[in-house]
Amino acid sequence: MAVHLAKGTRDFLPPQMRHRLAVMDKVRAVFERYGFEPLGTPAFEREETLTGKYGDEGEKLIYRILKRGEGGRDGDTDLALRYDLTVPLARVVAMNQDLRLPFKRWQMAPVWRADRPQRGRFREFYQCDADIVGTTSPLADAECLAVCSDSLTALGFTNYVIHLNDRRILRSMARMAGAHVRETTVLTVVDKLDKIGADAVSAELREVGLDDEGLARLWSILNIPAGHHDTLDKLAEHLDDEGRVGVTVLHEVLDLALAMGVPAERLVVDPTLARGLDYYTGPVFETVVTEPKIGSVSGGGRYDGLIGMFSGQPIPAVGVSLGLERLITVMEELGMVGANTTTADVLVTIHAPEQRAYALKIAATLRVGGIRTELFLEDKKLKAQLKYANARGFRWVAFAGPDEEAAGAVTLKDFVGGVQRTVSLQDAASSIDL
Amino acid sequence: MAVHLAKGTRDFLPPQMRHRLAVMDKVRAVFERYGFEPLGTPAFEREETLTGKYGDEGEKLIYRILKRGEGGRDGDTDLALRYDLTVPLARVVAMNQDLRLPFKRWQMAPVWRADRPQRGRFREFYQCDADIVGTTSPLADAECLAVCSDSLTALGFTNYVIHLNDRRILRSMARMAGAHVRETTVLTVVDKLDKIGADAVSAELREVGLDDEGLARLWSILNIPAGHHDTLDKLAEHLDDEGRVGVTVLHEVLDLALAMGVPAERLVVDPTLARGLDYYTGPVFETVVTEPKIGSVSGGGRYDGLIGMFSGQPIPAVGVSLGLERLITVMEELGMVGANTTTADVLVTIHAPEQRAYALKIAATLRVGGIRTELFLEDKKLKAQLKYANARGFRWVAFAGPDEEAAGAVTLKDFVGGVQRTVSLQDAASSIDL
Repeated sequence: MAVHLAKGTRDFLPPQMRHRLAVMDKVRAVFERYGFEPLGTPAFEREETLTGKYGDEGEKLIYRILKRGEGGRDGDTDLALRYDLTVPLARVVAMNQDLRLPFKRWQMAPVWRADRPQRGRFREFYQCDADIVGTTSPLADAECLAVCSDSLTALGFTNYVIHLNDRRILRSMARMAGAHVRETTVLTVVDKLDKIGADAVSAELREVGLDDEGLARLWSILNIPAGHHDTLDKLAEHLDDEGRVGVTVLHEVLDLALAMGVPAERLVVDPTLARGLDYYTGPVFETVVTEPKIGSVSGGGRYDGLIGMFSGQPIPAVGVSLGLERLITVMEELGMVGANTTTADVLVTIHAPEQRAYALKIAATLRVGGIRTELFLEDKKLKAQLKYANARGFRWVAFAGPDEEAAGAVTLKDFVGGVQRTVSLQDAASSIDL
Repeated sequence: MAVHLAKGTRDFLPPQMRHRLAVMDKVRAVFERYGFEPLGTPAFEREETLTGKYGDEGEKLIYRILKRGEGGRDGDTDLALRYDLTVPLARVVAMNQDLRLPFKRWQMAPVWRADRPQRGRFREFYQCDADIVGTTSPLADAECLAVCSDSLTALGFTNYVIHLNDRRILRSMARMAGAHVRETTVLTVVDKLDKIGADAVSAELREVGLDDEGLARLWSILNIPAGHHDTLDKLAEHLDDEGRVGVTVLHEVLDLALAMGVPAERLVVDPTLARGLDYYTGPVFETVVTEPKIGSVSGGGRYDGLIGMFSGQPIPAVGVSLGLERLITVMEELGMVGANTTTADVLVTIHAPEQRAYALKIAATLRVGGIRTELFLEDKKLKAQLKYANARGFRWVAFAGPDEEAAGAVTLKDFVGGVQRTVSLQDAASSIDL
């Protein structure tokens, strides 16, 4: 019988899954170090909770679940799979009015989108979000930058830059370029700068209605070199009142993030950063890994209009989202996670049927000592057992023949160190150097 | 706008989620200590992968997903949410013929069943399985018993008993009671012994056709006291050939499990254990927690016919399944998990605006030192900040006024110890005793 996975989904066999778990454990530890709290929400929501939240394109990508029993006869649906982690967060905030604000939560969980599968894009994938709900304090914005920086460092990335801008600066910039054009149209084109270059951007902006004067003004802003307070001071000279509010806020967020320990060379104010997402209302940021050159791996910003969608009152929020699937893929390709090829640290072999009970005792002793221990389960010759240890990539093998058993000892073979020595059973766990 | 959860689903707010993660981390550590490998499978499968696997009743409980786009217009479905972790495992084994056997895998993941919601039963719930696929060795059966015992111990349960029996013993027992009755009918009734008592069981067995002689024979077996090898020896006297095969296997599994470190008083052969599940083929077991008296919390056994369902060839397997949701509920009710009321270990307050930058430095220093640190984000008086620390249940608070800042120091207040002392910034992390 031929069996297949559902299109766009993946199994994670142990080598991949070990790698995923290691990455997720590291990110979780960073979130916890900042006092973010874990939240769990169900995989599916009532259909009406999700509909109308993701635009026309998003709407088509929602997986809808048939009603059970009679209700499903006519093809009616009533539930839908989670499309992101933000709408469920908004629902949780609305349903738990006694939640203490600011509410700092992290969630690392799969979401589902019926997107056309393509290289690196799947229909089931993890999102990894940390958000701070209920405060307008720039400390919260800065903390998201610090979490972002610490996460990448914890994962082993050393060459990354967080690009910082502000929605109010971007809107002001678009207005300066010519108020007769819709600002989001301008920003959508500017967002392509990295991909299509300055000339193509200018051409497209002319097409959407910018005149020469507007274009010149826009480029005088976009050409301000990325930097710190100097960049912000120059920006202020070119922007209107709303833009200067954004500048003032970024001065503070920048100072706070640096004071929180974000390295100065890992954070720049970048006038060309124009994140495409409409719902941001204040500071926005995106992180680019430059070496290896893999582009954007995380982003975030302040979105004060979204979390209140169900509560009927505005609730400020700021968050960071790590591109977990992308990070995992890159780290796997580059061998950035420790090359553990097995879950267990040591394989305990069974020397001969007479030593089986003693081998079990060795395994139990190692486990009590905190060593992850696999016992060879099948009835095979010692040679086959050692071959298995080698093929699986075990570093350590433990074995005991009649002599070891008589002496209450065990022989530990270290494939990496290339040595083996016999120690007493009670010293076995501490003799294994991981 | 009124928003609701989908019926039968739950959010896990931080206190619950912290508790769940702590329990799952502990169980995962046990699985890893035995060298089980992690496996990930998608939440949804192709519909045909799941249909026909769970009987008529189960079939009705499967969540089916509407086709996207045109295909869904007529209410057609093509995907279905995972109903358990066993069918996906069988699919993985069939699709990965080069998988090295025996394959030891653990998976802890949600499954979905459109069951009628009731107290303690939900439509989304976690299953937590460890299985060994591809070997008939009794070492594998014993290892499942050891994993089960170690997991409960790791979670803090001290009074539990694993009841062990064998499908071949059960079948033989049913035959001895009267071959004219279907053996599963007899076993289904025997399975109720705990609930309805011996008299009611006898009455029901008479109804399904057992005569006095059959009943007498059956009771002479069921009344053999639970124990170790003595119980098995007595069983052997009453059973036919197939039953005695089961007895021989249990002798060995029992010895192996004890040699692996399962405490003798935590494991009994119990002739009355008649797990209802048809697919078991060899040893079966169920774990009962006696103090607190919460009944069955895990079970498992050998099922040599199931994993091969897609591969077209028999593949032996044995596994243990922990009743994770039940364990979590019980542990929460009994306060068995450490009473951490916050994710972070310490709250860093901001003494006054002038000390804000220094407070951020304190937070960064503690985090680098591995301390989970929450920074007070809002602009409030110190008194309000301390009140917050108290209300949230923080044990440690760190603060620094102008004097501390001038001295490069920080004051740490320990709400549990009731003391506070001022230490140098570099000693701060190591001064926090968790």
